[in-house]
Amino acid sequence: MKACGLIVEYNPFHNGHVYHLQQSKEETQADVMVAVMSGSFLQRGEPAIIDKFHRAKAALQSGVDIVLELPYVYAVQYADLFARGAILTLSSLNVDHVCFGSEAGNIVPFINGYHHYIQNEKQFESKLHQFLDEGLSFPQASKKAYESIDLTSGEVDLSQPNNILGFSYVKAVKELNASIKPETIQRTKSGYHDEKIEHDIASATSIRKEILQQQSMTSNARNALPTATVEQLNNYMHSSGRWHSWEDYFPFLQLLVQTRTLDELKSIHGVIEGLEYRLKQTVQEAESFEHWMQLLKTKRYTWTRIQRMFAHLLTNTTKEEIETYKSINQSPYVRILGMTDKGRSYIQSIKKDIDVPLISNIQQFNHSMLDIEERATNAYYSPLPSSVKKVFKSQELTGPIILKETGI
Amino acid sequence: MKACGLIVEYNPFHNGHVYHLQQSKEETQADVMVAVMSGSFLQRGEPAIIDKFHRAKAALQSGVDIVLELPYVYAVQYADLFARGAILTLSSLNVDHVCFGSEAGNIVPFINGYHHYIQNEKQFESKLHQFLDEGLSFPQASKKAYESIDLTSGEVDLSQPNNILGFSYVKAVKELNASIKPETIQRTKSGYHDEKIEHDIASATSIRKEILQQQSMTSNARNALPTATVEQLNNYMHSSGRWHSWEDYFPFLQLLVQTRTLDELKSIHGVIEGLEYRLKQTVQEAESFEHWMQLLKTKRYTWTRIQRMFAHLLTNTTKEEIETYKSINQSPYVRILGMTDKGRSYIQSIKKDIDVPLISNIQQFNHSMLDIEERATNAYYSPLPSSVKKVFKSQELTGPIILKETGI
Repeated sequence: MKACGLIVEYNPFHNGHVYHLQQSKEETQADVMVAVMSGSFLQRGEPAIIDKFHRAKAALQSGVDIVLELPYVYAVQYADLFARGAILTLSSLNVDHVCFGSEAGNIVPFINGYHHYIQNEKQFESKLHQFLDEGLSFPQASKKAYESIDLTSGEVDLSQPNNILGFSYVKAVKELNASIKPETIQRTKSGYHDEKIEHDIASATSIRKEILQQQSMTSNARNALPTATVEQLNNYMHSSGRWHSWEDYFPFLQLLVQTRTLDELKSIHGVIEGLEYRLKQTVQEAESFEHWMQLLKTKRYTWTRIQRMFAHLLTNTTKEEIETYKSINQSPYVRILGMTDKGRSYIQSIKKDIDVPLISNIQQFNHSMLDIEERATNAYYSPLPSSVKKVFKSQELTGPIILKETGI
Repeated sequence: MKACGLIVEYNPFHNGHVYHLQQSKEETQADVMVAVMSGSFLQRGEPAIIDKFHRAKAALQSGVDIVLELPYVYAVQYADLFARGAILTLSSLNVDHVCFGSEAGNIVPFINGYHHYIQNEKQFESKLHQFLDEGLSFPQASKKAYESIDLTSGEVDLSQPNNILGFSYVKAVKELNASIKPETIQRTKSGYHDEKIEHDIASATSIRKEILQQQSMTSNARNALPTATVEQLNNYMHSSGRWHSWEDYFPFLQLLVQTRTLDELKSIHGVIEGLEYRLKQTVQEAESFEHWMQLLKTKRYTWTRIQRMFAHLLTNTTKEEIETYKSINQSPYVRILGMTDKGRSYIQSIKKDIDVPLISNIQQFNHSMLDIEERATNAYYSPLPSSVKKVFKSQELTGPIILKETGI
C-alpha cells in the first residue's frame, strides 16, 4: 500500500482540508492518507479549539486513514522545528509522500530553492545570526536572511506563511535524509489568515473566530465544515460547556507569573531576553488575556512568540527540555490517535519494517517526550469542570480511536 | 497609652471575638487593642473566607484599634512558629500585654508549665525527635513529648487546641525575651471545632460551614456575628460573587501538581517524606478538593498538614524560604492593615521608640518576606473574575484602612 503523509493542525477540520486531502490523494495516487496532527497546543501557540481526540475523530470520519500526534515539543515551535518533528513522525510510518498546500502548487521551485539555499547556507547562517543579534525575532530574521541569499525573490515566494512551512518540510526531508518524496498541491483561494467566511472554503482562523464570538455553530461556519466536524464541535461543547481559547487560561497564567520566581520564569522555553521582567511588570495591569498580549507585544516579542511562551509556561516546558529534541534523528515513539480499518491494515502491513514503538495509551511507553505530552494534555484541560476533565483525560489511557469503514 | 495584643484569625470576626476583645480589655486595663491577624491563608491551611482587608475592617468596626498582618511565613504554620511570628509582630509595636482565651482562664498554670518545660527541655527534645522518627506528625509528636515530661497531666490541659496555642504564646514570649506580659481569659462555652451554631456565640468553623453550605447569610449566622461582619461578608460576596474555600483552588492545584516536576514539588515547604509521589499518584483520580484530601490523608499526613502544604504549593513557598524565618529575633517590618483614630494616636505615641519600619502599602518596603506576602495575596485572589481581582489587589498598594471613631 502506498501512503501519503499530511502535516496538519485541523483546528478544526474544514472543507479546505477535505480539498487538501482529496487533491493530495489524487496527486500521489496513495492508498492510505496519514495525517500528523498537532495535539493540545498549536504551532502559533494557541490551545486547540477542541481536544485532539475530537479533532482526530472528525478527520477520520472525513477520509483521513491514520491520525498521528505531532509531539508537543515540535508542535508549538517555529516552522523549522515544527517541520522536523512532522517529518520525523511521518518517516517512522514509512510514508511514501508528503503533500502540502502551496500558493502555486508546483514542487520544483521548492526543490530548486532548497539547492540554492544549500549553496548559500554559510551566508544564510551568518545573515540569520546578524539579524537575530539586531533584535529581530526568529521568523523575521530568517525571512530577511532568505532574502539576503535571493531565495525570496526567486521561485519560492516565502512571504506566504504556507510557502514557508512547505519550504521547511522540504528542508526537513532533505536534512533528515528521509525517504519521503515531497509533493505540493495548489491551495484554494482562501488566505491563511482571512478572517471572514465568504465561501464554503474558509480559513480555520475565520471559522474559529466566528464560532468563538457567537459561542455557537453558525450557518456560515456550518457551510465551511464537513458534517463530522460540526458534530464533533457540538459534542465537545455539549460535554464540556466550552470551546477553548486563551482567555480560559488567563487566571492560570496570572497565578504562574505572579508566584514563580524570575529564575523559574527564565527557565521556561520561550522566556528570552528579559521577558520574565516584562511578564512580572504587566501581569497586575492586565484585565484579560487579550489585554495582556497587547501590553506584552513589541516588534521583538511577536504575538505568536508570546503565545508559544505562554503554552510553555502553562505546561512548565523548560529550555533544557526542548534543547534535547532539536537534534534527534529518529522519533522515540509514534503515537496513533486514531485510524480507520484501512489505516489499521496499513499499520499491520508495515509493522515488521519499522523500528519505532507505536503507542496509543500514554502508559504503554516511558519517555520524557511523552511526559511532556501528558503535561500538555492536562494543562489543556485545566479550565474544564473536574468531572468532564476526568472523562476526557481517560482517553489518554485507552487505545486509539478505531473507525469502522461502515461508520463513514 | 497601654496596649493589649490579641492573636487572631477573625475568619470571620464573630461574637466570641467581641467577648475576647472586651474581656481582654477589662483584664489588662488597656487603652488600645492591637490584633495581629492571619492574612490570606490561615493557621490550619485554609484560604480565609473573605480577604484580609474586609476582615480587618469588620474588626475595626467592632472595637479593635489596630489590625496588623501576621506574615504568611508564620501564619500558615504549626503552633510554635505561628506563635513566634505573632509575638515578634506584637513586640515590634511595644504592646504591654498579650491576652488569649483558654479553657480555665488562669495564666498561672501556663507560666508554671513553661518553667516545668524548661527544666525538662532536654528530655522533651529527645522524646520529640523519637516520636517524629517514629512517623508522627509534628503536633502529634509534640503532644506526646509534652505528655512524656508530665506537662499535660499537670496544670495546663494541652489536649485543648486553644491551650496549645496559649502555651505556645507564653513560650514565644519567654524565648524571644519579649517585654510583653501574657494574660488569659476564660473562653466561652462554644468549642473550637463545634460545627453547629446553637447560641449567639458560635465557633468560626460552624459559621463558615453554615454560610458556605447555604451560599448566603443565614439567620443563625447573623445571630452569631456583629453587624459589621455581616456587612463585610455581604459586601465581599456582592463584589466578587464568592466566599473562598479550598474547592475554588482545585483546578489551580491540579495544574501545579500535574505540570511541576517531582523535584520542583519536593522543594515546596510541607512536601515531605515522599508526598510529591503521593500527590502525582492521586491528582488524576481526584474529583474535587475534598475528594483529593480523602485520597491524600493518612495518619501521618494530617488534614491540616496537607492543607498547609497546598497553600505553600499555590503560593510557591519553598522549604528554603521558610527556613530563614524560623529563627529570626526581630520582625523585618510590621504591616498595618487598618486602624481607628485611637489606634493611630497610639502609633504616633510610640513611633519614636520603635526600630522596625511600619508599612501598609507593599511597595513602601523591599523584603523577601513581603514578596511572599504579595504572592499569597495574588494566589488567594486567583479564583476571582479579573476585574474584581484588580480592584481587590489595588488595596495592597494603598494606605491602611483608617476608621474614624465617629464611624463606629
